[in-house]
Amino acid sequence: MNRLYHFPLSPFCRKVRLTLAEKKLEVELVEERYWEPSADFLRRNPAGKVPVLKTDGRVMAESQAICEWLEETVPQPPLMPRDAEGRFEVRRICAWFDDKFHEEVTSKLLYERVNKKIMGQGYPDSRAVKFGASRIKYHLDYMAWLLDQRRWLAGDAMTLADFTAAAHLSCLDYISDVDWNRSANVKDWYAKIKSRPSFRPLLADQVPGFPAAAHYTDLDF
Amino acid sequence: MNRLYHFPLSPFCRKVRLTLAEKKLEVELVEERYWEPSADFLRRNPAGKVPVLKTDGRVMAESQAICEWLEETVPQPPLMPRDAEGRFEVRRICAWFDDKFHEEVTSKLLYERVNKKIMGQGYPDSRAVKFGASRIKYHLDYMAWLLDQRRWLAGDAMTLADFTAAAHLSCLDYISDVDWNRSANVKDWYAKIKSRPSFRPLLADQVPGFPAAAHYTDLDF
Repeated sequence: MNRLYHFPLSPFCRKVRLTLAEKKLEVELVEERYWEPSADFLRRNPAGKVPVLKTDGRVMAESQAICEWLEETVPQPPLMPRDAEGRFEVRRICAWFDDKFHEEVTSKLLYERVNKKIMGQGYPDSRAVKFGASRIKYHLDYMAWLLDQRRWLAGDAMTLADFTAAAHLSCLDYISDVDWNRSANVKDWYAKIKSRPSFRPLLADQVPGFPAAAHYTDLDF
Repeated sequence: MNRLYHFPLSPFCRKVRLTLAEKKLEVELVEERYWEPSADFLRRNPAGKVPVLKTDGRVMAESQAICEWLEETVPQPPLMPRDAEGRFEVRRICAWFDDKFHEEVTSKLLYERVNKKIMGQGYPDSRAVKFGASRIKYHLDYMAWLLDQRRWLAGDAMTLADFTAAAHLSCLDYISDVDWNRSANVKDWYAKIKSRPSFRPLLADQVPGFPAAAHYTDLDF
């Protein structure tokens, strides 16, 4: 049995949840208040972060490493292409979102507006929020530019790159921070991902004190 | 011909340089003042970061994605084990250093002390430096704990995990921010990496205005 220690609005946890679901692997979710780590939790992951996947006695941390391991051990359906160049592009785009987008957008909007309050760390820094709200436009335009040339973000097949991007964007969509009218092809791309069965559990997520935006669960947003 | 756009004291560039050298791939280094990005540079990598590897007309960014691509296209000598579990552990530790260590230590010590000055962004934030100087002890202890159980960081073979960790530590060693007396096995591990031919070019790096620590090039430090 797989058990995932997670937090609902963590893009890194969502990425692993989507990968597990696409591979048709069942998982028991355990919500973890990782900012108040228990000794037990730190024993599972000395980095003190979520996600942590427990599977057959193994305890695994780091979302990209977990997803690569799932891809290698459960190859069907594939979430990475078979050629080295295609795999490079998937990993490049995963890093783009987990690193650059996370730094410039996710941390500035979601963490300021939601995580800070949940963690009792005070009010959002309005300069950070303003910066994030400005930068997300650039990232949506970059996605639009990629999707002008390709059916999916890393090429003509749906890959881990799409689920990584969707994991971040879905958290921001929960708090209504994504302007879906900015680009038709980004909206079409998200609509395709959002309607997948693997996405359904994410749409049911609720964070006390932060009701989801009205359109969040709507497949025709 | 391979060309790497880099900055000498960037751990991410050093990781790629070490991987190229271990695989016996020649590379022309071009120093890039990435914080004053030229239009040409942004065309090569819209993320505006180094390293960027140009090879056979391909332009590649993101250090981990580049190293994985090198491992797949030039398998000898291997820098990743062949089993999925071993590969997971390598990737987990690479992420530990590129993400957690970078956030808590590299950015707090190196970027405050060196990069800020070079980029004309003022003086080091003493709270950040103090935080980094305190956190590096925890990371060195974590490495010591791993090396108590294994010959190398991710297992009994030398892998990309070791070169990733050494890339970060070598930058901090340049400014004398690593206490090698804290743990004998971490020191022994670094001495083994430091004496490899692939490491020699890193030891010749010089950053104007920041002379390397006296012991930086010393193999018997």
